[in-house]
Amino acid sequence: MSKKPLEGLVVLDFTKVYSGPYCTLLFADLGAEVIKIERKNTGDDSRSFRPKPDLVEGSGYFMYMNRNKKSVELDLKDPAALEIIYRLVKNVDIVVENNAPGATEKLGIDYETLKKYNPKLIYGSITGFGQYGPYKNKPAYDIIAQAMGGYMSLTGERGGMPIKLGTSMGDSIAGVHMAFAIMSAIYHRDRTGEGQFIDIAMMDSCFATLENHVVIHTMEGVVPARNGNSNQNASPFNTFKTKDGYVCIAIANDALFAKFCEATEMKELIHDQRFEKNPDRKINEDVLTPIVTAWTSQRTTEEVCDTLDKYKVPVGPIKDIPELVNDPHILAREMMIDHEHPFGGTIRMPGCPIKFSETPIDEFKPSARLGADNDSILKQYGGYSDEELVKLYDAGTLIKR
Amino acid sequence: MSKKPLEGLVVLDFTKVYSGPYCTLLFADLGAEVIKIERKNTGDDSRSFRPKPDLVEGSGYFMYMNRNKKSVELDLKDPAALEIIYRLVKNVDIVVENNAPGATEKLGIDYETLKKYNPKLIYGSITGFGQYGPYKNKPAYDIIAQAMGGYMSLTGERGGMPIKLGTSMGDSIAGVHMAFAIMSAIYHRDRTGEGQFIDIAMMDSCFATLENHVVIHTMEGVVPARNGNSNQNASPFNTFKTKDGYVCIAIANDALFAKFCEATEMKELIHDQRFEKNPDRKINEDVLTPIVTAWTSQRTTEEVCDTLDKYKVPVGPIKDIPELVNDPHILAREMMIDHEHPFGGTIRMPGCPIKFSETPIDEFKPSARLGADNDSILKQYGGYSDEELVKLYDAGTLIKR
Repeated sequence: MSKKPLEGLVVLDFTKVYSGPYCTLLFADLGAEVIKIERKNTGDDSRSFRPKPDLVEGSGYFMYMNRNKKSVELDLKDPAALEIIYRLVKNVDIVVENNAPGATEKLGIDYETLKKYNPKLIYGSITGFGQYGPYKNKPAYDIIAQAMGGYMSLTGERGGMPIKLGTSMGDSIAGVHMAFAIMSAIYHRDRTGEGQFIDIAMMDSCFATLENHVVIHTMEGVVPARNGNSNQNASPFNTFKTKDGYVCIAIANDALFAKFCEATEMKELIHDQRFEKNPDRKINEDVLTPIVTAWTSQRTTEEVCDTLDKYKVPVGPIKDIPELVNDPHILAREMMIDHEHPFGGTIRMPGCPIKFSETPIDEFKPSARLGADNDSILKQYGGYSDEELVKLYDAGTLIKR
Repeated sequence: MSKKPLEGLVVLDFTKVYSGPYCTLLFADLGAEVIKIERKNTGDDSRSFRPKPDLVEGSGYFMYMNRNKKSVELDLKDPAALEIIYRLVKNVDIVVENNAPGATEKLGIDYETLKKYNPKLIYGSITGFGQYGPYKNKPAYDIIAQAMGGYMSLTGERGGMPIKLGTSMGDSIAGVHMAFAIMSAIYHRDRTGEGQFIDIAMMDSCFATLENHVVIHTMEGVVPARNGNSNQNASPFNTFKTKDGYVCIAIANDALFAKFCEATEMKELIHDQRFEKNPDRKINEDVLTPIVTAWTSQRTTEEVCDTLDKYKVPVGPIKDIPELVNDPHILAREMMIDHEHPFGGTIRMPGCPIKFSETPIDEFKPSARLGADNDSILKQYGGYSDEELVKLYDAGTLIKR
């Protein structure tokens, strides 16, 4: 077992489904101890999602998002369960949750309550709209964050309907921002002894990643609009039809355009006044696009890529999931891992996208059965004795599965 | 001036345009000293992007992405400039760069070279495809990463063409992963004294944020496809036409559907066998969608939102940029900030999406003129004397603007 960068950090994890679990997955993969507190008899909702839903063992969704984590099963409305949390929280560094605002107060696991037990605690809350502001009580799913945070207004074909990213980007972008925010707060705690609360909203995280679309509006008055896959400033920089699908070509400067013209044996275009400089090409895009398409559409995507790759022109196919899970680059970069899961057999899932030279992320333990770690976690972090555990099982606060 | 979480950390920043600058923007906003090394006479390419390109003062794009950072202008092919880097690097914690693989070796600012001057250095490289693997030398722009990392295959209308997210998500998702990775490496360094190299690829970062689409394929054999804005598992959970545009409604469970039926005065649907449970609604989506659309299309987006908001049904309009920059929630959460820029006047731009209780991010210094901090940075972090600076100006290694 190699050393991991976050060894020694302990996370008490009240999150479910995606934004929070993706955040704590990063911690778990990097070697932190992540203790997932799951609702009694229900667990993380994603245990029951596709693929292969299973409440106790967990679905494929759960197995992927919760590898390397521990599971403790508790009904927080049971005062004895809440007492367990209060004993555990004294010995953890971090709490993460993604319940609706107000839910943690009702349960008694909000920051103000938990910091009494651990003043150095770092407590991160991910919600759709954050802990303050007029929309704070609005319920949110990813699609609502993508709609209200700006992504959808910019995504889709020109004149077409607004489209969301096919994957839940509002969740994941908030989760990764939270992971960074927590480690920044740990850095501050290490130097000052001060704990704190961190509020991250999915809507804010979307809005903060609109690149220059906001300043283009505030400084130029332009209203950014959906424009398919074309680029605001460069051409040819778009998706083009091929014999068997589509290909992306991204030519952002004149040197690349010259290479493109060489590769495609259309050298006469290099000194065509309409296409000489990038702004010329953008102005004359309606003339240039059909010329490029005439070339791409007579070739397969692979042929287009092979030809342009030789000339170092930025080009790429649109890879679908079946291609990706066997893609030589994805495999070479350990971005597909597999492990034996005691329940599910061999599970193939994405690896960790962070590649460290000295603390490689090369160990992926299977996700836990619901409540599998009740005893060991209560002993190690709550100081519970065997006798106390027996009483908790007798009282039904803990259950065996 | 309030305290900031990353005060004391020093970042030497060789990044340009978006993935790297967004990463170091997070560091700069959180109080780290970010020293941007910019190419002599050119600077970060984004100085010349829209809105309002200006090489020396910086465009609106540059002003936003590089607020709170310092600027040092150097030609790294000049041995005297490289010597400056080697003196600075002894006194920084972090280097971040997003050049093509191999470029830093050619310049002499690669990890192996720089760590000789500072063995505890954390060095992060963001590239399209990473430092190893068969595609490592392929040039990449955001669109290529979105195409090859899986986003585009999942985004777009059913049966329609693959669409990229309208903003450069392949860049920003890689940048935020890098920010987390660096702080994790800092945590490890603080405990072990060990520095290291971090390799993050845009393609990997996209692939790692495909939620459950990969495991659905590996475990069920399903080929995930574009499906507009509809949800894989729930209905009604989609975009619906209104009198004046579109609205998103997200009903993921039976209790929310009952509330929706109450809100819309269609209570008879609650016990309609075709719509009773979520799987029923998904199976009968082709019947349910027109019923929902019949209701939404007779109302404005605002009316639909007001009605459903009262019943706590997840709903949201698709906000465009002009709406967002004046949105009451965005404003209440300080997600639009403005500051006086010595060159650009009052600049309005997005704020920081991380809200800390004890170390609030409430100070945003204007971006720097090209090379504005040459003298102060060389003195403070390189130990240069006034006499040495004079010589560097006389030799043309440093220039006055």
